[in-house]
Amino acid sequence: MSGAPWYLDCDTGIDDALTLGLLVAEGADLKGIGSVSGNLSAAGGARNTLDLMSLMGRADVPVAVGAHDPLGDEFHGVADFVHGANGIGDVELPRAGEPVAESAAEMLVRLAHEHPGALRVLAVGPLTNLALALALDPELPSLVADVVIMGGAALVPGNVSSVAEANIWNDPVAADLVLQASWPVTMVGLDVTMDARFEETHRVELAAGGAVPKALAAMLGVYFQYYTPILGRPSCALHDPLAAAIALGTVVPTSAPVVPIEVDATDGPGRGQTLVDLRSRFVGYPPQPGTRHRVVLGVPEGFGDELLATLLRLP
Amino acid sequence: MSGAPWYLDCDTGIDDALTLGLLVAEGADLKGIGSVSGNLSAAGGARNTLDLMSLMGRADVPVAVGAHDPLGDEFHGVADFVHGANGIGDVELPRAGEPVAESAAEMLVRLAHEHPGALRVLAVGPLTNLALALALDPELPSLVADVVIMGGAALVPGNVSSVAEANIWNDPVAADLVLQASWPVTMVGLDVTMDARFEETHRVELAAGGAVPKALAAMLGVYFQYYTPILGRPSCALHDPLAAAIALGTVVPTSAPVVPIEVDATDGPGRGQTLVDLRSRFVGYPPQPGTRHRVVLGVPEGFGDELLATLLRLP
Repeated sequence: MSGAPWYLDCDTGIDDALTLGLLVAEGADLKGIGSVSGNLSAAGGARNTLDLMSLMGRADVPVAVGAHDPLGDEFHGVADFVHGANGIGDVELPRAGEPVAESAAEMLVRLAHEHPGALRVLAVGPLTNLALALALDPELPSLVADVVIMGGAALVPGNVSSVAEANIWNDPVAADLVLQASWPVTMVGLDVTMDARFEETHRVELAAGGAVPKALAAMLGVYFQYYTPILGRPSCALHDPLAAAIALGTVVPTSAPVVPIEVDATDGPGRGQTLVDLRSRFVGYPPQPGTRHRVVLGVPEGFGDELLATLLRLP
Repeated sequence: MSGAPWYLDCDTGIDDALTLGLLVAEGADLKGIGSVSGNLSAAGGARNTLDLMSLMGRADVPVAVGAHDPLGDEFHGVADFVHGANGIGDVELPRAGEPVAESAAEMLVRLAHEHPGALRVLAVGPLTNLALALALDPELPSLVADVVIMGGAALVPGNVSSVAEANIWNDPVAADLVLQASWPVTMVGLDVTMDARFEETHRVELAAGGAVPKALAAMLGVYFQYYTPILGRPSCALHDPLAAAIALGTVVPTSAPVVPIEVDATDGPGRGQTLVDLRSRFVGYPPQPGTRHRVVLGVPEGFGDELLATLLRLP
């Protein structure tokens, strides 16, 4: 649970910012944070991460800049229509600290060797850094306890294409390598994250909190604008925070079968899709030899309320 | 409704046999039936179709042999583990009649010209013949009232791969062409057909009926064997009959949004998948310009009971 040593990989991002808040409020033992290009550039994500962690009184956690470009591709630029030009809803935070010299992939490999068998990995952006770390040290899977990712879609539509979710879409080659490696992966995808929401009432309550909740509420204004035509009202999906809560164990899935997961890394119409083999659904997903990945298909209702209460504990 | 002139394209097959029974019992005005390789070879499918139609007193309906090979591929042989070696559960029927000289694609084009704007097309096998007919006459879409297909999977697993349904998987190139043509297509896929079932009680009641119901019940023994490990008990999915009932209007979908549908015709892991764009689900699928395909996502319960009652009317 939260007593374990953690490596977080993120592309900070508005829902990544909420995730940093959740992890800090829950007292997660963060040994290091790597950034990756996704919602914005890896450098920009590291900047936002450093500023936010400092604002939350956790400037002690080292932050490493990770991969700028996806494997075999080029970074396509900030998703400003979702997260604002600076990635955090154009909220200006006091600048604080500098990233460490090692890369995110090097940090992950180092931490795995320092905490063999114990290190838990939470990855809420594209999986480029994890794939690079696997290349740096092929023994990595045996050193890491488990990997929890926010990404993919099993039985629901994608959010970039009809079938592809943004984190996987942004680097399907890396996602394919991460899912082929011999570590257990828990996939927290759009099946559950699209139904985990902050509504306008949550945003207003957050805005009445301390400096950190106020800053998060300000970011949510931009995020809500993106989601309003998709969800039909001012609100947002809580992608990354839900993955973090499942990783920490504060949210326990009601359905999470262990089944094969493939990634479509072709240039075809299915590019970036997670192909989750749920054909055994009518007989309750009996164990299959060699299968090691969990896909979360259900969680209890009310995560938005829980997350709000947690974030309001921040200064 | 059933007063319209119909062209049926099928790969007869056990659930195709049930479909022929349904169409005959409902008095559908069948102008012609084409066969296509799928559950078994096109020639074998035509043989089964002729024999069944004769047994049901409808030897007057012309049957044309269609494409043996999928577009750009070769037919891989009978799915005997599903449908038995002869495609109809190894039930031996009296041999009756011969196919007409024209091909299935030629028959479809001819019927469309004979019934301009009125002909309805029901395709419950791979879409090879429909694609060949489009190549024979590019004006075909303007002559056909609509196309209803059994095939694909939108928000549920496939049945050949984690994402691909058998009819689309067997000729994704043809399916792609059929879905790109400018006619309206209603897709009846695994989303609804896997939950439309015949149980052992239905099979027993059918076996107590006339000669045709008895023959259909005998075929179902083999089909139930295939489905028992998948569904957890002796029973079967009613793929093709449900598509026919929706085409006839005797089953009215409870949910059938008009949305874009693509087909994955790559050689990647998503080959044969129908990519149905349901991203607008939270705002009720507002109309999108140029979109003309319906995907059936919900039907009323009880189709097995209705189908049984209909089939028991057969001699």
